[in-house]
Amino acid sequence: MALVVQKYGGSSVADAERIKRVAERIVDARKAGNDVVVVVSAMGDTTDELLDLAHQVSPLPAGRELDMLLTAGERISMALLAMAIQNLGYEARSYTGSQAGVLTTSVHGRARIIDVTPGRLRGALDEGAIAIVAGFQGVSQDTKDITTLGRGGSDTTAVALAAALSADVCEIYTDVDGVFTADPRIVPNARHIKQITYEEMLELAACGAKVLMLRCVEYARRFKVPIHVRSSYSHNTGTIVTGSMEDLPVEQALITGVAHDRSEAKITIVSVPDEPGAAAKIFETVAGAEIDIDMIVQNVSTGQPGAHQTGRTDISFTLPRADGPVAMAALNRVQAEIGFETLLFDDHVGKVSLIGAGMRSHPGVAAKFFGALAEAGVNIEMISTSEIRVSVVCRDTDLDDAVRAVHDAFDLGGSEEAVVYAGTGR
Amino acid sequence: MALVVQKYGGSSVADAERIKRVAERIVDARKAGNDVVVVVSAMGDTTDELLDLAHQVSPLPAGRELDMLLTAGERISMALLAMAIQNLGYEARSYTGSQAGVLTTSVHGRARIIDVTPGRLRGALDEGAIAIVAGFQGVSQDTKDITTLGRGGSDTTAVALAAALSADVCEIYTDVDGVFTADPRIVPNARHIKQITYEEMLELAACGAKVLMLRCVEYARRFKVPIHVRSSYSHNTGTIVTGSMEDLPVEQALITGVAHDRSEAKITIVSVPDEPGAAAKIFETVAGAEIDIDMIVQNVSTGQPGAHQTGRTDISFTLPRADGPVAMAALNRVQAEIGFETLLFDDHVGKVSLIGAGMRSHPGVAAKFFGALAEAGVNIEMISTSEIRVSVVCRDTDLDDAVRAVHDAFDLGGSEEAVVYAGTGR
Repeated sequence: MALVVQKYGGSSVADAERIKRVAERIVDARKAGNDVVVVVSAMGDTTDELLDLAHQVSPLPAGRELDMLLTAGERISMALLAMAIQNLGYEARSYTGSQAGVLTTSVHGRARIIDVTPGRLRGALDEGAIAIVAGFQGVSQDTKDITTLGRGGSDTTAVALAAALSADVCEIYTDVDGVFTADPRIVPNARHIKQITYEEMLELAACGAKVLMLRCVEYARRFKVPIHVRSSYSHNTGTIVTGSMEDLPVEQALITGVAHDRSEAKITIVSVPDEPGAAAKIFETVAGAEIDIDMIVQNVSTGQPGAHQTGRTDISFTLPRADGPVAMAALNRVQAEIGFETLLFDDHVGKVSLIGAGMRSHPGVAAKFFGALAEAGVNIEMISTSEIRVSVVCRDTDLDDAVRAVHDAFDLGGSEEAVVYAGTGR
Repeated sequence: MALVVQKYGGSSVADAERIKRVAERIVDARKAGNDVVVVVSAMGDTTDELLDLAHQVSPLPAGRELDMLLTAGERISMALLAMAIQNLGYEARSYTGSQAGVLTTSVHGRARIIDVTPGRLRGALDEGAIAIVAGFQGVSQDTKDITTLGRGGSDTTAVALAAALSADVCEIYTDVDGVFTADPRIVPNARHIKQITYEEMLELAACGAKVLMLRCVEYARRFKVPIHVRSSYSHNTGTIVTGSMEDLPVEQALITGVAHDRSEAKITIVSVPDEPGAAAKIFETVAGAEIDIDMIVQNVSTGQPGAHQTGRTDISFTLPRADGPVAMAALNRVQAEIGFETLLFDDHVGKVSLIGAGMRSHPGVAAKFFGALAEAGVNIEMISTSEIRVSVVCRDTDLDDAVRAVHDAFDLGGSEEAVVYAGTGR
């Protein structure tokens, strides 16, 4: 008998009908002889509706109370899902994050999981019940207050429970059939990927592939939890995320796929004194505002050698678009101290990335990548590379062309068109 | 510095605007120098909406999951209320029933409070915060599952917390200015009662006065918690429930007021064998279906003395109308065993009761009561009396006339018309 952790997102449980369908799917897994733990998100738009209520009573609700409020969402969906399963004749019990033993830091709205003590879940499984657990939430180890895990929290809950329970697999149900060589909405002949390593999946997630959140993949890699990404609208095989690139045979195909991201913005700090500490001060400032930055590019200094004048340089970086205003304000406050000239904000950028093993040892890959973009008439604004990735920033309007050009250049297409389920955006 | 427990019902927090008004009222109590603990119900129709969702996924949802679902309601209202208070510059923290230490039995949907361990609330108060607590819910001492307290649960939560914290007063905010000598909607000159004993309030609640639930008054009497019933729509003085009838001076007015109830139905068991054990079997059956019965009347046996035939009698009792179908089904199953002829169900009944000290020692009271009903043309179907109460069942269509007739006969009216707040039904 295997132990399976399944996770269903908000769109999979958006109304009573969908909850009943998901219940059938869960019961199928139980009938197949598995112990089943299910992690569930809040129904459809519940979280947004609760946020709206919060802003009606307070312009700046405190994190503790916001977490208390939002966790009502999963409480509703998990209880309904347990009822729907019971209605099919199977025993099911729902548990809050706290009851399931999800212990976190006390940073409200973006808590991190410290430990999982799944005693009650284990007890429920031992008694033959299906355990339904609220995703996205936990309880602070220090303050005993209810916390939420922030973006992608439910996926992380699922992987964390799978790790704590030594589950055989963590199935993440989503609105696509798994991972593809590119977004099938942009590249119709994108090829389905049956199996992928944690490292490749991490790079894809970091580069904008939305199918899995970065945190959840990091957690899975650390605890060696196999993730099975599947569609909740089909019975197709999906994608298994497991193993390390070191274990890949040398004959393994070099290129994994193309990812894109249109959620970022670019800030350019113009004419920064080219002296030790300037860059450090800039990124300390941004980090102090708790903003994650992505790519950083510094141009060659424009200072005149021998002119007895400090050189000047421009520094650009990308960050989540939503964090733009906070980052701009924080940098503005240190303008005099750092001595830069001005700040530019550009939210019309896109990022395209090519992910695959052994990029460093195959220098032709980057050249072919840039060549494909040039041929498609896409201007490159920033470049960043890692051992298994090369990314460029371009105009957001060029992004789709860029993805298609790169996907074609590396012959990533399959012979069949990928199935895209209509109207199932998460 | 006093410690005040306040309780606000669902209509008082039905939307963001009302939540903000309640927040102001709470802050006023804090500004006046009190420590404040607030018990809050779910917003407006939330509970009904959640029940509706439950019935969409399952015709007979399990109690454990239903409690998990419904408790999401108070979670939402309490978090919003805490935010609204913080927005006024005061520290507030919300707590679930479980976090507030409300320990209950494990009977889902109608759990009873076993103990209250308010350590976290005490800590919050010591740090100067206002504590907001979810009404109507607790956690089972045995199973650690979330429970709900059933009807009137939030009032009971408030009184239980007031007892556990040795609060100076428990303020129950409602949609009327307190307790009146009759329902002001039926008797316009009903007199406002400034102070009333626990015993009188218990009888009023048991006889249908909706201003306070029976359980909550029982709890308050047991732990000697003074209850202050007030309107959340005015700043009038309300009614204090405190003290025992034994402490009343002998000159105290005999009659407290008139209560009425239109929530009951009457079941008549026709032609029951008049032999030992028949009545016991009937009421064991009803109790087995977990139904609370109210009045019981047994007619004189119609058996012919000396006819060597067992006598026959009719037994009637009243019960909550909603429990009618279950009671009828349970009794039908034992028809052969008990040997009665048939069952009659009547849901067009009403009950009018007169409550006051020393009824037993003033036999004229009952006579005057029946006389007033006769004069108003109201036919009496059942009679029941206690030391401080006389109740009759009549046609529901006669009920308003009956209340007015009794109220007039005992000269209970005041000189002013009572204020009834429009559209604030709970």
